[in-house]
This record gives sequence, structure tokens and C-alpha cells, in this order.
Amino acid sequence: MITVDTAAPLSPTPRSTVRRGAKRARTERADLYAVLDAGLVGHLGVVLDGAPVVLPTGYGRRGETLYVHGSTGAASLRASAAGVQVCFTVTHLDGVVYARSTFHHSLNYRCAVVHGTARVVTDHDERLLALEALTEQLAPGSWTTARLPDRKELAATAVLALDLGEASVKVRTGPPGDDERDLALPVWAGVLPLRTVAGEPEPCPLLPEGTPVPPHVRERRLSPGA
Amino acid sequence: MITVDTAAPLSPTPRSTVRRGAKRARTERADLYAVLDAGLVGHLGVVLDGAPVVLPTGYGRRGETLYVHGSTGAASLRASAAGVQVCFTVTHLDGVVYARSTFHHSLNYRCAVVHGTARVVTDHDERLLALEALTEQLAPGSWTTARLPDRKELAATAVLALDLGEASVKVRTGPPGDDERDLALPVWAGVLPLRTVAGEPEPCPLLPEGTPVPPHVRERRLSPGA
Repeated sequence: MITVDTAAPLSPTPRSTVRRGAKRARTERADLYAVLDAGLVGHLGVVLDGAPVVLPTGYGRRGETLYVHGSTGAASLRASAAGVQVCFTVTHLDGVVYARSTFHHSLNYRCAVVHGTARVVTDHDERLLALEALTEQLAPGSWTTARLPDRKELAATAVLALDLGEASVKVRTGPPGDDERDLALPVWAGVLPLRTVAGEPEPCPLLPEGTPVPPHVRERRLSPGA
Repeated sequence: MITVDTAAPLSPTPRSTVRRGAKRARTERADLYAVLDAGLVGHLGVVLDGAPVVLPTGYGRRGETLYVHGSTGAASLRASAAGVQVCFTVTHLDGVVYARSTFHHSLNYRCAVVHGTARVVTDHDERLLALEALTEQLAPGSWTTARLPDRKELAATAVLALDLGEASVKVRTGPPGDDERDLALPVWAGVLPLRTVAGEPEPCPLLPEGTPVPPHVRERRLSPGA
């Protein structure tokens, strides 16, 4: 079991200090975990030949460590594995904020940004724990029901670990922040809330007819609030 | 009116060539526009002090140009404006793919990745057109109903343009790609479709009671299919 001090504040470094809209910064470690745990993909940024490359990827968390994985042949993953700096960002959209002026239009969102140097996970047990975390983040219940990775699949999978020590969290909630002078304008203002929902499960055409949808799929709920 | 050859294929450069899962690459310019036009935020990657920084931001498109904006004081925007390389990525999640093995678990998604050098927009007319595109992407109908930016607001807003010449699009659809050997396993496989939906509009508490929600908010539909 991993023990984590979720009450410890996020320790800001110059680059993990929220500068724009600082009042929206959250400083509790629990806020970081809540944003990360609610997501399905993050956007991994690496520098390739001097230029940034941003690609979406699944992830998992165990305590203070974030895991990503991918094919051992992927260029962005190879770059991340080379001991260079990476950035990993998870964003949830919670609403479109309609203001009385176009200037104050905005979004309600929760966003976590993690900075660090990725570590290639080579220990067999840690790799399995990381893949379990990745699988359960994407598809809770699948690690205990689907076939687990065999030796060949493990060999084809690179697993990277990113420490959550340097991170920031920014959250916007609530109505628009209109200027006083605009409040009398005959313009509707408010929030159109957004959420991600799951539709009806679509069975694989190769499944035997009448195979029931298991509860961990049928009853899955997504995108919990912050 | 802008004339765009949407039938022209996306011209791949080394870094905009999809390497992993190349069969999922789309090569039509119209595919790129469809992914971009369906989104609310993208993830902008810049290099700051040698390290990647990835932040979510709204955007708009006019023809072959993508626009982002922000406070003139934002570090990531200042970095983007300095004539350096940026990467802008828009991702839509369409479903969780449950496979019979954990290895073949996946996501159905649409993703556009744009590479380029940002240009600071200084021309007044282009800045207004860019802000219109940004506003209408976030909140269709707001440009013609809300108060438009005044001189002071315009001065506080940096607008950047990114040419869509170098971009890639990747789309995954359909059921899991399980191994033949796993098809007889008693494991449910299929897709749990995901979509973003709008909830009931929440009026600003400062609105006069009974202010009707306008049709462009009430009837808004999100996240169209690719």
C-alpha cells in the first residue's frame, strides 16, 4: 500500500506557479489527484529536434507517480525516455461561460499541469502495477476480467514514470466576471454546463450473440466533478 | 470570403507523418478542419527555457489559419509569439474500447496536430476577424449579441496566427482489434461511446429574473461526429 500525504500543499517552482488568473490556482495535492483521477487522456509535451510535440495519451496514477505507456517504437515516447523534460497536462471542460461582453467569455474547467523528467520503468513488478493503473484509469474493472499482458506484449510496451512533485492545478467555476458597466446590457449571461457521458455499449461484432454487458461497463459513470 | 481548397491533401513533413498506427492517419484537409471545428480547446505546446510547456486554450479557425489569443502578459503566449516553433493539438474522445486482452484496450478518438511558427497578428481588421472566429468557436452566436471588445480590451489581448500547412490527423473508430487467439475468451468486448453534452443553462445570478435563454445557447449541440 502506498501512503501519500494528500494534505501536503503543491510546492510551486517558478514554472509551476500559476501566473495568469492566480486566484484560480489550487494548492492542495488532493486537488491535483482529483483532476488527474477524473481523466481518460492527457496531453504529453516533449521537445523533438528543438520543437514542441504535443500528443494525447492515456495514463494512470499510483500515489505520487504518473505512468504513461506506449509502443517501444514511438518517437515521442523514446524522446520522453531520454531523460529530458516533459510536460503532461490533463484538462476537463465543465462549462461554456457566456458573458455580456465577448472579452469576458470563458470556460469553466479543471486543469492539471505536471512538469518533470520521465523515468523508464524497468522493474517487472512496477511495470505490471503501472499497466494495472493505466488499464483501470481507462477501463475500471478490465484488469481483473481481461487477459493480462504476456511476455511478448510486455516487451513491446514502454512504461514511463513521471513524479508528481512539480505540478500546478487551475480551476475555474461559476458565472461570468462581467464588468459593472455591462450588467444592464440586454445580453443573456451564464454558464452552459458541459459533461462527458457514456452512451449505450456497442458489443464487438465477434462476440457471441446475447453476451451480457458486465456491470463495470454498463454502470460506468464518467467525468466526476472536482 | 476566404477560398480554401479543402480537397487538397495534407502534405506530410517528417514530423507531421503519422508513424504509430499509420492506418489511422487521415490525409484530407477536410478531415483536419472537421476535427478542429468540433473542438472547444486545444493544447498549445511551447518550449520555455528548453522544457516543453503544454497549456489548454481556446482557438478559432478561418480558412487555413488557426488563431489563439490570450493576455499580453501570459508567458506561454509571449514564448509563442517570439517566432519559435509551437505545436497545437485538438483531441476528441469518442469511446472507450474494451478488448478481450488488456493489451488491446484503446480509445476511439479524433486528433489533429498542427506544427508551425506563430505569427503575431497586428492588423486591426485581422485581429477582429480572429477574435470573431475565437468567440464563435467557443460560443456560437455571441459575436452578434454580446458587447464587442473596446480599445482597452483589444490592447490587452494578444492574437497569434498559426498556419495549418503542416498538420496531421489521426482517427480511431470501431471495435477492438483483438488477437484471434483471444476471441473465445469469456470477456465482454466492445465500445462504450463517449460524448460531450450540454446541461441546463445556468443564468448569471445578476441577470434580471425571467430573462429568457436565447436559442443560440438553449439549442446548442456539441461534439459532432467526424
